[in-house]
Amino acid sequence: MDFFVRLARETGDRKREFLELGRKAGRFPAASTSNGEISIWCSNDYLGMGQHPDVLDAMKRSVDEYGGGSGGSRNTGGTNHFHVALEREPAEPHGKEDAVLFTSGYSANEGSLSVLAGAVDDCQVFSDSANHASIIDGLRHSGARKHVFRHKDGRHLEELLAAADRDKPKFIALESVHSMRGDIALLAEIAGLAKRYGAVTFLDEVHAVGMYGPGGAGIAARDGVHCEFTVVMGTLAKAFGMTGGYVAGPAVLMDAVRARARSFVFTTALPPAVAAGALAAVRHLRGSDEERRRPAENARLTHGLLRERDIPVLSDRSPIVPVLVGEDRMCKRMSALPLERHGAYVQAIDAPSVPAGEEILRIAPSAVHETEEIHRFVDALDGIWSELGAARRV
Amino acid sequence: MDFFVRLARETGDRKREFLELGRKAGRFPAASTSNGEISIWCSNDYLGMGQHPDVLDAMKRSVDEYGGGSGGSRNTGGTNHFHVALEREPAEPHGKEDAVLFTSGYSANEGSLSVLAGAVDDCQVFSDSANHASIIDGLRHSGARKHVFRHKDGRHLEELLAAADRDKPKFIALESVHSMRGDIALLAEIAGLAKRYGAVTFLDEVHAVGMYGPGGAGIAARDGVHCEFTVVMGTLAKAFGMTGGYVAGPAVLMDAVRARARSFVFTTALPPAVAAGALAAVRHLRGSDEERRRPAENARLTHGLLRERDIPVLSDRSPIVPVLVGEDRMCKRMSALPLERHGAYVQAIDAPSVPAGEEILRIAPSAVHETEEIHRFVDALDGIWSELGAARRV
Repeated sequence: MDFFVRLARETGDRKREFLELGRKAGRFPAASTSNGEISIWCSNDYLGMGQHPDVLDAMKRSVDEYGGGSGGSRNTGGTNHFHVALEREPAEPHGKEDAVLFTSGYSANEGSLSVLAGAVDDCQVFSDSANHASIIDGLRHSGARKHVFRHKDGRHLEELLAAADRDKPKFIALESVHSMRGDIALLAEIAGLAKRYGAVTFLDEVHAVGMYGPGGAGIAARDGVHCEFTVVMGTLAKAFGMTGGYVAGPAVLMDAVRARARSFVFTTALPPAVAAGALAAVRHLRGSDEERRRPAENARLTHGLLRERDIPVLSDRSPIVPVLVGEDRMCKRMSALPLERHGAYVQAIDAPSVPAGEEILRIAPSAVHETEEIHRFVDALDGIWSELGAARRV
Repeated sequence: MDFFVRLARETGDRKREFLELGRKAGRFPAASTSNGEISIWCSNDYLGMGQHPDVLDAMKRSVDEYGGGSGGSRNTGGTNHFHVALEREPAEPHGKEDAVLFTSGYSANEGSLSVLAGAVDDCQVFSDSANHASIIDGLRHSGARKHVFRHKDGRHLEELLAAADRDKPKFIALESVHSMRGDIALLAEIAGLAKRYGAVTFLDEVHAVGMYGPGGAGIAARDGVHCEFTVVMGTLAKAFGMTGGYVAGPAVLMDAVRARARSFVFTTALPPAVAAGALAAVRHLRGSDEERRRPAENARLTHGLLRERDIPVLSDRSPIVPVLVGEDRMCKRMSALPLERHGAYVQAIDAPSVPAGEEILRIAPSAVHETEEIHRFVDALDGIWSELGAARRV
């Protein structure tokens, strides 16, 4: 059928195959595959909370008490005690009145932004050029007029704010730690601009919550500017080792999201056991700084070793250590060889996750990687870099 | 701030509060609340699979073996053995080559439709007027030209198909069992029209999988027309008692969805334990018809009793027994009183889940409700119906 031929042509060689694996609880970063055991170098479970005994116990106890799924949307019998507790939990550390829990970070951004930027007539949105797909989609679905400022470029943002109609409502959306570049926004500057121009701010702290700041409340809290951001968005799927996302903000905004965000309203609530596990992780990391120390040290070490070998690292500021390859086929080889030869798995990131031509290996040396392993991993990568004749840093 | 005032005005009295509860595994439909124990009459866990021992054991074993979250998107180390097995499982009973697993039904519809209806130039979409929000959103985000046919009206669909440009690709999207009306589409008629006009078909079987047909493969399989639908979409959150959604279809379409559906690509994969529990439920219901019998009998009984009392039931065809109230405030009272007085919880469904003015009580007498309970529940509802002076059927 013509339809199929055209669709196949569109997909082309972007067809995706995923590595099937079983992360071994208690032995992260180890995982089983059909070719034996490997080590994962690209997980978002930065702190290894996905194998923390408190988390696993909370999940199993919840399964025994409340069963499997939640049985409905939040509005139709699906609201368990754990969902409610999990919405109370992030509000305080982010300095917000209320929070709304979604089943994923994508849904949280897409759903809440489509409501918040879309509900007010003539809203002018100012969006960082490197914002995550979920932010882009939420803003697009809001129908608001969008102005894109260059990534991390406060001067450009200010130009755009100054050029916009004074009387129209303004809305700034950005990430604190960038998902792929691993660089960190200058939040005090953004907060200052927002104040000057009377803009509402939406800050995605997906790669920062659990990782930075007092109790793991994120970069804005670390920098003491969390109260200057209107809405803070976070995930339970990365440092907290589980799944789900949330937005925290003023009650009136959260009420609007709860009543109208379609990805929230029309979705079955998270299984109670997932909410229970996430809650245990959040509470543990609220009281413990220990887990947060190690990924920072590991990232620094990985970055230093890569830099010594002139392998082009894009950032040294976060547990995300992206290495620029910049060519799709080369990047896939660069991912395949360490896996085949050394059982070291780091995924090649291609479009649509990064722009074509900016393909990266996204290395995430987590709290559960040993110093010795990091040395071996960088040595392996260095050898393959030479073998494939990939570009070094100049 | 002006922004807040305007947003609050938009939300108005649509502000939502959710009943916080704990469904008691092993004792569904019973649940604990802060006001004591209640019985849930509006769960989507139609078969009580959310408390099936096989499901709970599979979840706990997975927690022990693989830990909490999946640790990444499907493409970045998040693909567990259970995700792969869960994608193989639905393909065969739906008569399809391949399937893609999403973290929710909303994401599955929104993500796959935005790709499938959007990838081919000039695609003309024909959408049932009562389609679920997730279908509407996916079609809207696809950018395709949409033609809306009257709910379940094959003649109207044919008029629209006949009036459209012969040479343009056509795409029909509908639900088999309607989520709120509980009525069932005439699939053979739709399949015939699709064939005549060369249209690709997308069938949402969210409220049908696990419930109807051989092995619970849905209404299309029950009617023997599943191979005539291009894509079948299902959920793991209702009859299978867990969470997540999927689409099943030709490999070339599934490849496109896997590579490009943004709600799939940019989302952390389901926790392995959730996939394990869902897989156990799917496999159990593949081999057992017993669970499916009871909700049909219970729905018939509930419907008959309501009809005897001239309470306006909208459909008698599925385990969804919607009662029309048609006025928001009255509907909320009609939900509050049985809960307060009899511990019987049935949610009032208002906009945006149904059009304003078509508010319903959506009763779902599941496999775990006893005959005696149903009689008592209808008696209670009847009393409240009189007390509030709600309209009876004429």
